[in-house]
Amino acid sequence: MASRGTLYLIPVPLADSVRGFDTELSVLVARITHWIVETPKVARAQLRLLCPDVDLNSLAMDSWSKHGGNDASALLKACIDGNDMGLVSDAGAPGMADPGAEVVAKAHELGITVVPWPGPSSLLLGLMASGLNGQQFSFHGYLPHDAGARKSLVARMDREAAAGSSHWFIETPYRNAKLFAELIQALSPSTRLFVGVNLSAPDEWIACHSVAQWRSTGVPSQIEAKSPAIWGIGR
Amino acid sequence: MASRGTLYLIPVPLADSVRGFDTELSVLVARITHWIVETPKVARAQLRLLCPDVDLNSLAMDSWSKHGGNDASALLKACIDGNDMGLVSDAGAPGMADPGAEVVAKAHELGITVVPWPGPSSLLLGLMASGLNGQQFSFHGYLPHDAGARKSLVARMDREAAAGSSHWFIETPYRNAKLFAELIQALSPSTRLFVGVNLSAPDEWIACHSVAQWRSTGVPSQIEAKSPAIWGIGR
Repeated sequence: MASRGTLYLIPVPLADSVRGFDTELSVLVARITHWIVETPKVARAQLRLLCPDVDLNSLAMDSWSKHGGNDASALLKACIDGNDMGLVSDAGAPGMADPGAEVVAKAHELGITVVPWPGPSSLLLGLMASGLNGQQFSFHGYLPHDAGARKSLVARMDREAAAGSSHWFIETPYRNAKLFAELIQALSPSTRLFVGVNLSAPDEWIACHSVAQWRSTGVPSQIEAKSPAIWGIGR
Repeated sequence: MASRGTLYLIPVPLADSVRGFDTELSVLVARITHWIVETPKVARAQLRLLCPDVDLNSLAMDSWSKHGGNDASALLKACIDGNDMGLVSDAGAPGMADPGAEVVAKAHELGITVVPWPGPSSLLLGLMASGLNGQQFSFHGYLPHDAGARKSLVARMDREAAAGSSHWFIETPYRNAKLFAELIQALSPSTRLFVGVNLSAPDEWIACHSVAQWRSTGVPSQIEAKSPAIWGIGR
């Protein structure tokens, strides 16, 4: 049996900015010929940002579905055959708020070495920038679509925030203004609400105020702009 | 009133490696003359790694206490006076698993712009490398010292992991072997336990197995080595 390749877990830019990417990563990206990606077209643009000289036509690229049910062994075939592979999602760190984790779990089962590369993550940047509790917190991914389930989760997060932890979630950008309105209506006045928009980009926008303070302002234009955002609540 | 400076939140290396740091950060570090740090001696070594040309003697450096109760307004005085400042902890991302968040919260109160810089975090690298659920997870910081409280939290994490979320924590390195023994004794056989040691360093070590599998091996030498580790459990 040939020895196995290594699976590199590689963050890609959150926005049109390569802040937080090192030249060692650029060298690694140039060397990897087999990729597991979320969306091939997006991945090609991201890899070109990380390594302008990359020869995109020479790459073997398979995609995993964000709806789950991937055949992770098939995706990892090149690794099993002894080639190093790279795993990327459409933005930020793979496996964070996306199902790339399935592929990594299978790699562990198959005895493939996994190497995570540091880079930007909207959750991590939000946590740092919020001043909310970074020692006890929960990430809830996308909030439920169902209005009742969403309301119930927001109420639970508000209670747990009052007890000290911070709570983090994301939402589809076109729903940002609606979510903001729901949150400032549902949360306790003394709960602090953090919003980080376009983190790491030149037009990054960050705000953290109590719900009482937010209620006295209108909806900020940056929230109405339908850009990617990370949300956090705490005390 | 003079306009205020910006507070830059800057991750520093987790280990003796600058993997994940970009040249733009090096330029920023060279430019900032006022720092808020956890331990000045550690911060000087870290800043030199990020920017070998930095003139350490010219820096104004104040430290925040990890025991809390900091006078955040006093620490931010240079920012209030119009100077840009940098905030760093002893390792990884400031505000993550440390009380630097107090300073950031005060910056928001004072209307100071905060800019988080991407970089390594053991939690983020662990999440990526684990294959455990990165869409719903909780970070618990350091486990309680009290044996009863620790046991109770481990049991709760095991239950919640069985329901689908993943759970993350850290421990003082010299207690790693003891913690490992406790975990494989207390957790359900089908729970998966992830350990990431010296993440981002050349001797990084990563393993994720079911508790049943871990029980059939001895304590890995990498866990006995008393190195910084991040722990995760899930299904």
